[in-house]
Amino acid sequence: MLKNLRFVRVQAKPIFRLQNRSFSIVSSHWQKYRIERDTFGDIEVPADRYWGAQTQRSLKNFDIGGPTERMPEPLIKAFGIIKRAAATVNATYGLDQKIGEAIVKAANEVSKGDLLDHFPLVVWQTGSGTQTNMNANEVIANRAIEILGGQLGSKSPVHPNDHVNMSQSSNDTFPTAMHVSAAIEINERLLPGLTQLRDAIAEKSKEFANIIKIGRTHLQDATPLTLGDEFSGYVQQLTFGIERIKTTLPRLYYLAQGGTAVGTGLNTRKGFDVNIANEIAKITNLPFQTAPNKFEALASHDTIVEVSGALNTVAVSLMKIANDIRLLGSGPRCGFGELSLPENEPGSSIMPGKVNPTQCEAMTMVAAQVIGNHTTISISGSNGHFELNVFKPVLIKNLLHSIRILGDASVSFTNNCVVGIKANEERINNIMQQSLMLVTALNPHIGYDKAAAVAKNAYKENLTLKESAIKLGLLTSEQFDEYVKPEKMLGPK
Amino acid sequence: MLKNLRFVRVQAKPIFRLQNRSFSIVSSHWQKYRIERDTFGDIEVPADRYWGAQTQRSLKNFDIGGPTERMPEPLIKAFGIIKRAAATVNATYGLDQKIGEAIVKAANEVSKGDLLDHFPLVVWQTGSGTQTNMNANEVIANRAIEILGGQLGSKSPVHPNDHVNMSQSSNDTFPTAMHVSAAIEINERLLPGLTQLRDAIAEKSKEFANIIKIGRTHLQDATPLTLGDEFSGYVQQLTFGIERIKTTLPRLYYLAQGGTAVGTGLNTRKGFDVNIANEIAKITNLPFQTAPNKFEALASHDTIVEVSGALNTVAVSLMKIANDIRLLGSGPRCGFGELSLPENEPGSSIMPGKVNPTQCEAMTMVAAQVIGNHTTISISGSNGHFELNVFKPVLIKNLLHSIRILGDASVSFTNNCVVGIKANEERINNIMQQSLMLVTALNPHIGYDKAAAVAKNAYKENLTLKESAIKLGLLTSEQFDEYVKPEKMLGPK
Amino acid sequence: MLKNLRFVRVQAKPIFRLQNRSFSIVSSHWQKYRIERDTFGDIEVPADRYWGAQTQRSLKNFDIGGPTERMPEPLIKAFGIIKRAAATVNATYGLDQKIGEAIVKAANEVSKGDLLDHFPLVVWQTGSGTQTNMNANEVIANRAIEILGGQLGSKSPVHPNDHVNMSQSSNDTFPTAMHVSAAIEINERLLPGLTQLRDAIAEKSKEFANIIKIGRTHLQDATPLTLGDEFSGYVQQLTFGIERIKTTLPRLYYLAQGGTAVGTGLNTRKGFDVNIANEIAKITNLPFQTAPNKFEALASHDTIVEVSGALNTVAVSLMKIANDIRLLGSGPRCGFGELSLPENEPGSSIMPGKVNPTQCEAMTMVAAQVIGNHTTISISGSNGHFELNVFKPVLIKNLLHSIRILGDASVSFTNNCVVGIKANEERINNIMQQSLMLVTALNPHIGYDKAAAVAKNAYKENLTLKESAIKLGLLTSEQFDEYVKPEKMLGPK
Amino acid sequence: MLKNLRFVRVQAKPIFRLQNRSFSIVSSHWQKYRIERDTFGDIEVPADRYWGAQTQRSLKNFDIGGPTERMPEPLIKAFGIIKRAAATVNATYGLDQKIGEAIVKAANEVSKGDLLDHFPLVVWQTGSGTQTNMNANEVIANRAIEILGGQLGSKSPVHPNDHVNMSQSSNDTFPTAMHVSAAIEINERLLPGLTQLRDAIAEKSKEFANIIKIGRTHLQDATPLTLGDEFSGYVQQLTFGIERIKTTLPRLYYLAQGGTAVGTGLNTRKGFDVNIANEIAKITNLPFQTAPNKFEALASHDTIVEVSGALNTVAVSLMKIANDIRLLGSGPRCGFGELSLPENEPGSSIMPGKVNPTQCEAMTMVAAQVIGNHTTISISGSNGHFELNVFKPVLIKNLLHSIRILGDASVSFTNNCVVGIKANEERINNIMQQSLMLVTALNPHIGYDKAAAVAKNAYKENLTLKESAIKLGLLTSEQFDEYVKPEKMLGPK
Repeated sequence: MLKNLRFVRVQAKPIFRLQNRSFSIVSSHWQKYRIERDTFGDIEVPADRYWGAQTQRSLKNFDIGGPTERMPEPLIKAFGIIKRAAATVNATYGLDQKIGEAIVKAANEVSKGDLLDHFPLVVWQTGSGTQTNMNANEVIANRAIEILGGQLGSKSPVHPNDHVNMSQSSNDTFPTAMHVSAAIEINERLLPGLTQLRDAIAEKSKEFANIIKIGRTHLQDATPLTLGDEFSGYVQQLTFGIERIKTTLPRLYYLAQGGTAVGTGLNTRKGFDVNIANEIAKITNLPFQTAPNKFEALASHDTIVEVSGALNTVAVSLMKIANDIRLLGSGPRCGFGELSLPENEPGSSIMPGKVNPTQCEAMTMVAAQVIGNHTTISISGSNGHFELNVFKPVLIKNLLHSIRILGDASVSFTNNCVVGIKANEERINNIMQQSLMLVTALNPHIGYDKAAAVAKNAYKENLTLKESAIKLGLLTSEQFDEYVKPEKMLGPK
Repeated sequence: MLKNLRFVRVQAKPIFRLQNRSFSIVSSHWQKYRIERDTFGDIEVPADRYWGAQTQRSLKNFDIGGPTERMPEPLIKAFGIIKRAAATVNATYGLDQKIGEAIVKAANEVSKGDLLDHFPLVVWQTGSGTQTNMNANEVIANRAIEILGGQLGSKSPVHPNDHVNMSQSSNDTFPTAMHVSAAIEINERLLPGLTQLRDAIAEKSKEFANIIKIGRTHLQDATPLTLGDEFSGYVQQLTFGIERIKTTLPRLYYLAQGGTAVGTGLNTRKGFDVNIANEIAKITNLPFQTAPNKFEALASHDTIVEVSGALNTVAVSLMKIANDIRLLGSGPRCGFGELSLPENEPGSSIMPGKVNPTQCEAMTMVAAQVIGNHTTISISGSNGHFELNVFKPVLIKNLLHSIRILGDASVSFTNNCVVGIKANEERINNIMQQSLMLVTALNPHIGYDKAAAVAKNAYKENLTLKESAIKLGLLTSEQFDEYVKPEKMLGPK
Repeated sequence: MLKNLRFVRVQAKPIFRLQNRSFSIVSSHWQKYRIERDTFGDIEVPADRYWGAQTQRSLKNFDIGGPTERMPEPLIKAFGIIKRAAATVNATYGLDQKIGEAIVKAANEVSKGDLLDHFPLVVWQTGSGTQTNMNANEVIANRAIEILGGQLGSKSPVHPNDHVNMSQSSNDTFPTAMHVSAAIEINERLLPGLTQLRDAIAEKSKEFANIIKIGRTHLQDATPLTLGDEFSGYVQQLTFGIERIKTTLPRLYYLAQGGTAVGTGLNTRKGFDVNIANEIAKITNLPFQTAPNKFEALASHDTIVEVSGALNTVAVSLMKIANDIRLLGSGPRCGFGELSLPENEPGSSIMPGKVNPTQCEAMTMVAAQVIGNHTTISISGSNGHFELNVFKPVLIKNLLHSIRILGDASVSFTNNCVVGIKANEERINNIMQQSLMLVTALNPHIGYDKAAAVAKNAYKENLTLKESAIKLGLLTSEQFDEYVKPEKMLGPK
Repeated sequence: MLKNLRFVRVQAKPIFRLQNRSFSIVSSHWQKYRIERDTFGDIEVPADRYWGAQTQRSLKNFDIGGPTERMPEPLIKAFGIIKRAAATVNATYGLDQKIGEAIVKAANEVSKGDLLDHFPLVVWQTGSGTQTNMNANEVIANRAIEILGGQLGSKSPVHPNDHVNMSQSSNDTFPTAMHVSAAIEINERLLPGLTQLRDAIAEKSKEFANIIKIGRTHLQDATPLTLGDEFSGYVQQLTFGIERIKTTLPRLYYLAQGGTAVGTGLNTRKGFDVNIANEIAKITNLPFQTAPNKFEALASHDTIVEVSGALNTVAVSLMKIANDIRLLGSGPRCGFGELSLPENEPGSSIMPGKVNPTQCEAMTMVAAQVIGNHTTISISGSNGHFELNVFKPVLIKNLLHSIRILGDASVSFTNNCVVGIKANEERINNIMQQSLMLVTALNPHIGYDKAAAVAKNAYKENLTLKESAIKLGLLTSEQFDEYVKPEKMLGPK
């Protein structure tokens, strides 16, 4: 088993760790390599890695961006799911049982994230993601070989192309992995995060249902509403947002698998596309189906653009919500000051009592990122040619990024901000009472013109409306109190 | 009736015409003005215009961009619909019958586009669109006064605020006009245009169903498919595109009307919101409903962002389709040359026979515009504050722009390009036959390695595969012809 | 002269007016046409229009978007300048003197905007703008023919291609018109507008130099600065913005003219490129030069992208400035309330005294538009192929749009908002005095911990700092007044 | 030294490694913690980390995105530079010499990247980057304490705020780190990468100077140019691109340091701002200067937007160049086929000889990312409020990302693609000779109309121009060869 190993003096350039994909940080020392082969010839691969020649070549040819730019973890896991499903289906079409089982076992490890260390490639590679598909084929083949007691790099008894990639092409596998990973992340991370946030705000909306406050339009004082009303708008935005994401899912559940190289399905067997979609649906418990047209499924990624469009809308909503909350919490003395946000950390080493709306800041930064990612996705989606869109890695990187940070930020914002929001009822009431717009309630009693005079005089003389009305001799204190009741201004008659 | 008229020496600055909103181009002459009034005092208004003081002030205060920047025509028409519906509903709540009927008549003229000359305001005004709402109120009031035999500018017997704007605020009316105009334009212009285009391409897909051609991935020669297959991908893209737009419509059919100033519905009557939505639905024959939460409907325009996201996805699809078609039509001698596009105009005064894919160019420019408009819309949607988003005019301008040019360009592209596309069958077959990838069919007969040798030798020696195979002594001419049949490479086995 | 005229029953479809490009609005009547010819044959053209066959074909083939989508006026004028300069230079290379002079005269009318009615084409045409170049050639040829007493449509004695377009191609003329029109608009509209705005804010910065106010970071109360300081930041933003625009001009002054069809300059004479750039520089009084590489100048429009990038940065600045001003002006009672913005129009028919920051709203909408236009421009710039970028019309439409609305909005914002801004000194001082952060000044006197105790107690008990300090027995009233002086907290020691 | 240590049973949640910032992957075991303190109280910190309480709180409060979202390495290094410079300058204002020296030493380690493991915070934190500034303060303080033999977490003799952060605020330090890191990365990575690419293309332009080829406009055959001409356009694009980046640097070299909390410079000493800029310039050998207006420097990040705008333009250029190269290399048999790109890896397991333009694909994906990052940056830049823009982390993350991937991709594209490009001269000549546009050369000899007849007949009959001309009896073979010489069509006469 060690016969194709050699020892090489490693240069001082460190190899890095990302998450649990760890590579020892080397500084000039002796490291073991084995030889792997492809149609371009021999190439040295670190002895303790499962990857093969094509992965190694990509590492060398695409030294762009460093470890943070590696293919996203959910995509790698999706490859595990797909390769496992393919082996299962291929077994029904004649793939050797023992080989099939070893592939299923190895692929399952990939799908669990156990072999992330063996996926070192960055997204800035070939636009079809072929190199990552081969990375998956090579890792699973070598791991399956190991399971079956063979020698790494021997391609026997499990061949990365002939067995692991059987009935597949990068051109249909990578798009399938895109859809599978995005659908899983949306269902497991994003929708729960958004729902949690929506529900937390809905709780606050109920809690604040009886707090009457000044409304603001154009940032200027307007007629009153309840703080619960205001929060109910946010709830509706998020409810719609969840709905918007869900309306895209039927198309995200369509899988390209079975289209192979150009969409015709050359080199697959009849029924393979339907069967593998079913198998993936079974594994993931999500309603995946085979795509109605494989040419579209390879050549365009409009569905990725569509899903990103839904995320973009959600980002727009969250920007508004987080902005409102930090503005309502501005102060404590010199701002709107209607809300108190939870203090999570010292705001400043100079100014005691300074609390910054840091969760709102993280959220709005996330929103800006998602909107920009959407631009990248739209441009990438528009630039396909003929039978293949070759912006696949950048598309899925950006989509999964948007899903991840939106989902995580929703949870963080919920737990570290929303649930702890307190209404400063006294201030809310105080400034609402000062508002000149309550004059509107006087219209039926003294007419628009006199009401206007009350308001203008109040503004000019810096009086309350009541003081102004009394001073102008238009109303008694009792009359004013009887007529001007903000709680009567909260809805239609 | 002429008592408040005065004559003023008009300066040489011309007043312009846009579409059928015509203002006579004046050069120093005597023009009639009448006096209109608002709470800021008197202001002169051209005597032959129905608008009033607030419109005139906006003209003066927002001299930005010129006539091409005026509020889009479909929005003005939507205001006509809304004001008509409001008068009808208000009549059931006590609005004077005669006044109500005059408003309905005048508003109906606005909804038909008969009074576009009287809507001179640009989108770069107040972000609530209040000035355009007042423009509608003023025009309808004056026109209704005229119908009832009154004097323009007298606000009697029809008052712009008290009667035309009854139970309304700009803050709920303008968003309603946004949804109504966008929904109409989508249903009457965009969906028919896209459907026509989709159907025309589907026709071509059928027509080309038996033309076998080389597939291309990474722009490189790949395995074959039919030209019909290739076009079927475009059909699928557009079918999905139409679906994507339609999934947004339920939320677009929700109307803000009834929320008034801040969403509470202050100054409306119970049921007004439901009734006016029903009335608008009746007039437009579209399934409008009152919005489930009016705070969201005023303070956010997420639905506009969502709809724009659908258009963005359609633009991405059309960019791909138009790009493919012009690439396939590149040549005639030195490009891909698979398609001939219709000649619609001389391509060049120097080079006879030069046909340019001008319809593709218009379409891809439209796509770029729609994607950029979407950025504007996303930014605008994210910047609302508290009870009101004040980017309403720029939001609807960009959305209606995207709808209009996508719809028109789809029709133009269909009629002036798609229906006239011809396949250059001889060339398609010729280059397909030359393609080295047909070697794939030899794998089962002579094995991958020898097949590879055939291909590599063919490339190196500039031979056909057949010549190469024979030259290498691997196959006879008859064997080659028997084994290599592109028509057998078009699907799964 | 009338022999090729015929009368045709015109359909009811109206022909529109845009600005002073007026077409009579026709309803079924008899209209005169004449016959024009190109290599595609005869075509009817309205008898009172100077345009010819190719313009008419484009009108028919590109019915997209309507009159608001016509080629921007400054571009048409730039064509006049270029055609005039070309005739002047061509005269030195042998163009008939009389023809040359007639072209110069006709082209000059175009450059003055006198013939805008004769440029009906929309931007959604061929991506090289050939049809608009031919529109210019046709109009100038027919007008020159008219000047010389010939017959419209006869192409004699002045031929649109041979004489007006002599030594030119659409491929170098249109890019030249792009640079010329943008450079003129920047110099005549945008830079003066921005400078005026910058200077007006600088005036305010001086006026407010001694008004000490609370600073706000994270929207939360922070240490003080002067209102003049705050405004000085805006001044710096605009000063940098003007600088940013200016740094792009050297590349905008490079002209493609002389590259002809593909950049080689085929069919021009040596020196033509340098001479026409000089001539254009003379006419415009701007330092235009011939581009150092004509291949780049036709095939890419990176400079348009670059200039748009500068405008994008300015839009970002203006969004911040306008947002700050409307936030500082929020209230009047329930917001920050530090500024009073001028009242230009009634804010609401219900609420007397409601002033909305409408100029800020127009400005921020303009900013959103410019940022989105920049996306369109970036996408369009990235999609050139080989020797020609065919997104020229959409590129220049968006760039000129951004220039125009930024320039106009700057003037409007200056005159209708900035110059009338008033500081509410009493409120500014009042809330600044309440601010807890002034406690920072106590650090050297009672130490950080006791200072923190003062601040926290003040917040908790809703006291002023002074009250809190006295209540805690840490300072006397006199001591507090001596130590806590905001005016000492405005800079380094 | 160990007295504040305690042992805690660590949960199975792994702590990750990113690059050389390694944290051992833990699975349930006993790990040492020490107690750190801030104004919020005690908190446990891993015993082997230098960070303190505020970093630990941020880790807990901002669990968003995972390790790939950590603050970019160049930013951390820039913090090392700034803290070192601050200590040096503070020493001249009275900071204890020994403490100053220890800070310089520790900060220097940070600036070298030796302590990256101790910077675990993600960008999705407070928008001022305060937590990362505190992370730097805490790490440097603890490391300096260690150097001086003290106890980690004791804040003595080196205090993170009082000493490491002396005369600084997060609000001026973080923007300074933004400018310093971006300027270094541009100078050390991006400009060298772009220059290398430009020079490599320039080499090819020279190498291809005599290869005459068909030009293509609208993707259609046009007049000829040399392949060297075509590449010279790319050279010019990149030369301008480098120039565009450089024109932004003067503003990037302005540093906010010295503005402290709100821009006034409170708590610094006179001259501190100038001196620290000088010190940073000395350390980095880049011409940094103190910003002319600190209010602008904290409250806006227009310069980041501007620099990103330059990168956006470069991305647009690179998209065009990489697209052209892959299109010119399309084939080998069924595309344009003018270039052969180097084979770096197997293109397909099925199709021998398939070479994909993978470097072009990586480059165009990078371009799409950079354009989208620019949208994020523009939005983030526009959303500042009052004295602080709180989108700092997302701004610098995206800018450094764009710089990094543009720089790396330029190098990869140069080495793995450009230098190996070969011209397929035979094919280039062959298709050029077939081109119908060479007919243009016959105009002076047989007139435009007969030349047109030759071209049209050639196209219709599928002949060469020469065959067509002879067949039509218009020219002899010798005449044709004499008149039609592409090499005479390459420039002005």
